[in-house]
Amino acid sequence: MDNKLTVYNSKSRKKEVFEPINPGHAGMYVCGPTVYNEVHLGNVRTFVSFDVIFRYLKYLGYKVRYVRNITDVGHLTDDTEEDKILKRAKLEQLEPMELVQKYSNMFHEMMNIFNNQSPDVEPRATGHLIEQIEMVQEICDNGFAYEQNGSVYFDTLKYNEKYKNYGKLSGRKIEELFTETREDLKNQEEKRHASDFAIWMKANDEHIMKWNSPWSVGFPGWHLECSVMSTKYLGETFDIHGGGNDLKFPHHENEIAQNVGARGVEPAKYWLHANMLLMNGRKMSKSDGNTISPYELFSGDSPHVSKGYTPMAIRFFMLQSHYRSTLDLTDLAMQGAEKGFKKLMEAASELKKMEYTGNESITEHDKNINDILDSMVEDMNDDFNTPKAIADSFELVNYINKLKDKHMTFDEISKSTFEKMKTTFLTFVYDIFGFCDESAGQDNSQFSGMVELLITIRNGARNNKDWATSDLIRDKLLDLGIQLKDSKEGTSWSKS
Amino acid sequence: MDNKLTVYNSKSRKKEVFEPINPGHAGMYVCGPTVYNEVHLGNVRTFVSFDVIFRYLKYLGYKVRYVRNITDVGHLTDDTEEDKILKRAKLEQLEPMELVQKYSNMFHEMMNIFNNQSPDVEPRATGHLIEQIEMVQEICDNGFAYEQNGSVYFDTLKYNEKYKNYGKLSGRKIEELFTETREDLKNQEEKRHASDFAIWMKANDEHIMKWNSPWSVGFPGWHLECSVMSTKYLGETFDIHGGGNDLKFPHHENEIAQNVGARGVEPAKYWLHANMLLMNGRKMSKSDGNTISPYELFSGDSPHVSKGYTPMAIRFFMLQSHYRSTLDLTDLAMQGAEKGFKKLMEAASELKKMEYTGNESITEHDKNINDILDSMVEDMNDDFNTPKAIADSFELVNYINKLKDKHMTFDEISKSTFEKMKTTFLTFVYDIFGFCDESAGQDNSQFSGMVELLITIRNGARNNKDWATSDLIRDKLLDLGIQLKDSKEGTSWSKS
Repeated sequence: MDNKLTVYNSKSRKKEVFEPINPGHAGMYVCGPTVYNEVHLGNVRTFVSFDVIFRYLKYLGYKVRYVRNITDVGHLTDDTEEDKILKRAKLEQLEPMELVQKYSNMFHEMMNIFNNQSPDVEPRATGHLIEQIEMVQEICDNGFAYEQNGSVYFDTLKYNEKYKNYGKLSGRKIEELFTETREDLKNQEEKRHASDFAIWMKANDEHIMKWNSPWSVGFPGWHLECSVMSTKYLGETFDIHGGGNDLKFPHHENEIAQNVGARGVEPAKYWLHANMLLMNGRKMSKSDGNTISPYELFSGDSPHVSKGYTPMAIRFFMLQSHYRSTLDLTDLAMQGAEKGFKKLMEAASELKKMEYTGNESITEHDKNINDILDSMVEDMNDDFNTPKAIADSFELVNYINKLKDKHMTFDEISKSTFEKMKTTFLTFVYDIFGFCDESAGQDNSQFSGMVELLITIRNGARNNKDWATSDLIRDKLLDLGIQLKDSKEGTSWSKS
Repeated sequence: MDNKLTVYNSKSRKKEVFEPINPGHAGMYVCGPTVYNEVHLGNVRTFVSFDVIFRYLKYLGYKVRYVRNITDVGHLTDDTEEDKILKRAKLEQLEPMELVQKYSNMFHEMMNIFNNQSPDVEPRATGHLIEQIEMVQEICDNGFAYEQNGSVYFDTLKYNEKYKNYGKLSGRKIEELFTETREDLKNQEEKRHASDFAIWMKANDEHIMKWNSPWSVGFPGWHLECSVMSTKYLGETFDIHGGGNDLKFPHHENEIAQNVGARGVEPAKYWLHANMLLMNGRKMSKSDGNTISPYELFSGDSPHVSKGYTPMAIRFFMLQSHYRSTLDLTDLAMQGAEKGFKKLMEAASELKKMEYTGNESITEHDKNINDILDSMVEDMNDDFNTPKAIADSFELVNYINKLKDKHMTFDEISKSTFEKMKTTFLTFVYDIFGFCDESAGQDNSQFSGMVELLITIRNGARNNKDWATSDLIRDKLLDLGIQLKDSKEGTSWSKS
């Protein structure tokens, strides 16, 4: 197999062979959450997508450094809006940093629930104020920013005159951005052009999160932190920059402008964007009720689903679609994903126990299995095509089930093929797709299954007047903290 | 009951009535970990102690803001030593911030394992560089610091001339601190007096974590971050400052000097210090092997213990001693704690299920129970005397067990007394002591207990040639994923 990893680069709008800047190493920066509320399911999808990319790069043998930030200082999607963290802090009557703490904790918990691996560095915007101020200064020194009343704005027109790349990533027509009417500026009179954006903002009196700077007591523009933290931990130019599709413009466009404006080089070689999560064919939106939170989806406490689904079934559902495609959440699709996930994990569990007991013959099955295994790697090499890799892995599920059910014997494949299948299948399921056994549920059904079995045996013993056995079961269960209760309706049990 | 919370103030060396600065509110700052290695059991004890204090303050109705920092920038216990984070980062071949991320994650995991609640704000040293530089400037402006070759030192002599309090918290004789010979200064020639300490250090070329400042590209002295972050989130003077005993000098002493030197006021009203954890009567120390890590204590994988202990048994063990006393970890003491914890939680579990079914008579038991309940609060009001509160709660355990075993009837107490006991006991166990049910472990023993019972019944059935029952058990268990294996030695089982 001579197959190389290709990734779809949003910048070139085509698939490119992945050639890291430092051979053997891969640096990846992904825009993390703004911690002012509970993480949305759409964000979870983005972080699951990049978790699989992180895992697959490691599988390929790269020494990966994965950096994902936490935005814990004012996040203003445009420069006029109210600071989301402050707004929510007021609402919850918390100090901004208390709010940030609360939602960071919840975010980390959610990432654990979905079995996403922790990034290697998780820098915070508040941890890089000095570096941000320094970058504003660099941009000013290079003539691509201007100060107005203590705020500093990036001069997109002047920048584009020199670099001619503003809008390229997102495919915006630069002329349209520049010629937006003055009305669109709203109360942003300080800007020279509609497309300019704040890199430092003077704080008003009510603003709590603010710092000293050469221009004013204020705070950095939202786009700045990623320009600073990505390059601080990954170098001036690194391999992969990822994020949700909605960040392409203005966030990533402005990141590029800032890095180039300050240091003359673009930050990332490959730009990867994860697509949106829809529900019932439409954009999720709180205002029209077409939304569901992760916890609602776990519990089933929502009009949009008939029941709850486990985090791993949801992860399976997400990976059944390519990260660059929109994904439509429906109850029916979730039911299918739940079944599929169960089938996959049952096969993994069977395979773990299987030992080769055949006679080393090589048949057409050998070739077929090896083709499937190659194909799974090719799928992933093709811009991380998880839906195809999952579909291929289900062909192996068929083989595993045939072996289990004795519809096929080990004599029909060679030992090396079996061992390769075992290793690769389990590696894909656990290490690359990142599924884990949701055994708590399994244990519970085993638990109640055993109690039911004991009740059945006890009933039999009582019918036979075998009081010794019947008493043994009741007393021993009581010792174990399990109480049987006999009534006309039969025997019920409870844990004490 | 007219009983007020008193706390032992290290500063005055006596118990004082707790009178918060803002009535109804309590601000508490506790020195957190330096995240360059796994958290020690001794640190766990400190954080468990302050977790109970945090919980009890909330129980008393205070709106508490609990701030605990993370030291993620060079921690030099004296100014000549090598930076611990950098040293370890080199060893593990990680970028310093990768190291910090790894050990922060592990620290949070450990706090969860011990059921410590998250602080309301968890500020990081790297997140407060600007504020630290500002405080250095303030201290310089007030004349209590001097610059030498890009580093800035706190002038303890000059400070003490004005404020006459340096050494007061830790009870050090100031003359001795000042007159230490020049030899003690080692290569700290830049200092004017041995007791002076760095508040800003110029970085050498190899130093990775460094920032621009008015004096040099460097990094803040270790003591500075706490002076800055405590007051940023709790106000110039706040209620409680806590930490391990070993931090009294020089860390807390220097914190006070910095805050007073910069702003003229001491940071905290009450200084609380948790004492040391010993093992087998001696200080824990890696060099002579007299040490055990939390995970070793969980698994029993250590020559110092005969078996593993659960996190909650360890928590119980810790609370059986007063936070200001040294605590000696021995296998025997742990065995006792394990038994005690089990007894307490069994009583809690019984009590949860109990409903009052008596006839509302009031007897001497009523008075006795109410006295115990009052006493538990008095214990905690007496500088958080958890060992006494636990001892008192065991008097209630006796009552609970008597009710359970019908050695006492509900007729012997009033409903209101029973209800008060139920509420208070459960609140102490879960909310104040912070214990949680370790049901996973309990489930495991129930689980294997049931399999063993089924094997016993199956053996009986086989002896009686009752093949139907014997097959039913084997087949049904197999369906549940539990495999029985018969051999000469008997029947063993495994989960598939």
